[in-house]
Amino acid sequence: MVNTLLEFRRARDWEQFHTVRNVATALSVEAAELLEHFVWSSDEQASHILEEHRAAITAEVADIAILLAYLTHDLSIDLQAVVSEKITANERKYPLEKSYGSNKKYTDLRRLLNLLQTD
Amino acid sequence: MVNTLLEFRRARDWEQFHTVRNVATALSVEAAELLEHFVWSSDEQASHILEEHRAAITAEVADIAILLAYLTHDLSIDLQAVVSEKITANERKYPLEKSYGSNKKYTDLRRLLNLLQTD
Amino acid sequence: MVNTLLEFRRARDWEQFHTVRNVATALSVEAAELLEHFVWSSDEQASHILEEHRAAITAEVADIAILLAYLTHDLSIDLQAVVSEKITANERKYPLEKSYGSNKKYTDLRRLLNLLQTD
Amino acid sequence: MVNTLLEFRRARDWEQFHTVRNVATALSVEAAELLEHFVWSSDEQASHILEEHRAAITAEVADIAILLAYLTHDLSIDLQAVVSEKITANERKYPLEKSYGSNKKYTDLRRLLNLLQTD
Repeated sequence: MVNTLLEFRRARDWEQFHTVRNVATALSVEAAELLEHFVWSSDEQASHILEEHRAAITAEVADIAILLAYLTHDLSIDLQAVVSEKITANERKYPLEKSYGSNKKYTDLRRLLNLLQTD
Repeated sequence: MVNTLLEFRRARDWEQFHTVRNVATALSVEAAELLEHFVWSSDEQASHILEEHRAAITAEVADIAILLAYLTHDLSIDLQAVVSEKITANERKYPLEKSYGSNKKYTDLRRLLNLLQTD
Repeated sequence: MVNTLLEFRRARDWEQFHTVRNVATALSVEAAELLEHFVWSSDEQASHILEEHRAAITAEVADIAILLAYLTHDLSIDLQAVVSEKITANERKYPLEKSYGSNKKYTDLRRLLNLLQTD
Repeated sequence: MVNTLLEFRRARDWEQFHTVRNVATALSVEAAELLEHFVWSSDEQASHILEEHRAAITAEVADIAILLAYLTHDLSIDLQAVVSEKITANERKYPLEKSYGSNKKYTDLRRLLNLLQTD
């Protein structure tokens, strides 16, 4: 799959446009296009939207996956390895006894960081 | 890898927070955190930033990959298949003779759509 | 207010970093920081978060307003005028009888555009 | 202007869709639509795009301003006051002698925060 993507890009001489910054920008834009499907809905409506927009939502997910594949390739990232490390880090950060059934700790850490940032 | 992620989530009873809408929101937020590294830089500075921030940038890419993995699982998407379809669609949309060395057509299509949208 | 912002920027010789592209990128990043507060919450939790994070949320809104002020200035946009035009356009796009109590039409237009885009 | 926006919303019974979370999501999506204009361009191309897309870019800025106006109203934020506070805070955070002609300090603070976050 990655080879096909690289060949697609090479054949069009598009490597020149694929700076990491530009691919990161595109990824952010595609993520927003995914999010846009849910933009004015309540939690309850969101699940209906999911069904009605399934084809378009799936296409957005494909776009994100493609950009992530370029990014991972261009940065020579071993995705398997860094995701494993991240999971290990998250296990320390969210120990079972403190995080079971709660989205609180995460929120609190963010809040602390936000306070630091907005200081 | 996906199994470890699913187990991580199940063990914390976090499936309740992982609606598709919430995961899509998180993905958008993580994509912005990646982009943030390049926010005030010129093209030239961007490549230096890439080197200086490599560890943090790699960690953001891992976060995005994790959220994409959850999304793909929760939507029962066959990523291999939809990316293949997308590549085929993109080959039609960007024929070699019109798109070689140019980011123009893409931009023009967007422009048309933007005009429609802002009508 | 705008004058203070312009003076702040001029005094630091930061105009060179404030290309429209960079300010637009920063605005996108700040909007994500605002959104981040609600990232894993349900509709119900969102209103509690609103109270608990009020100071940080207000600070994010200020950041967005500052970037919008720079953007408006740098693009010589008459904000009052373009917002008026936009409201007029939206009144045509969402006539009362079709849009009362419904977020549907909007969604449907988007869907059509998404289908075109993902074609 | 704000009154016209509030009346537009009230007339359509759209207050129910305008939770702070939803407006923040919409703002994030609109910011991405603005950013999208510059997505694959170099710094040099960005200024041409600015001219060619001026009408659409202006319309995106109007959308962002409208959402910011709703947000500010709904959160009862005194924008003038919070922006003033923010400028004062930024003057402390970026003293002239350390920040003149440099986007470094900002980047370094972010880096530190990112390291904390990705720990």
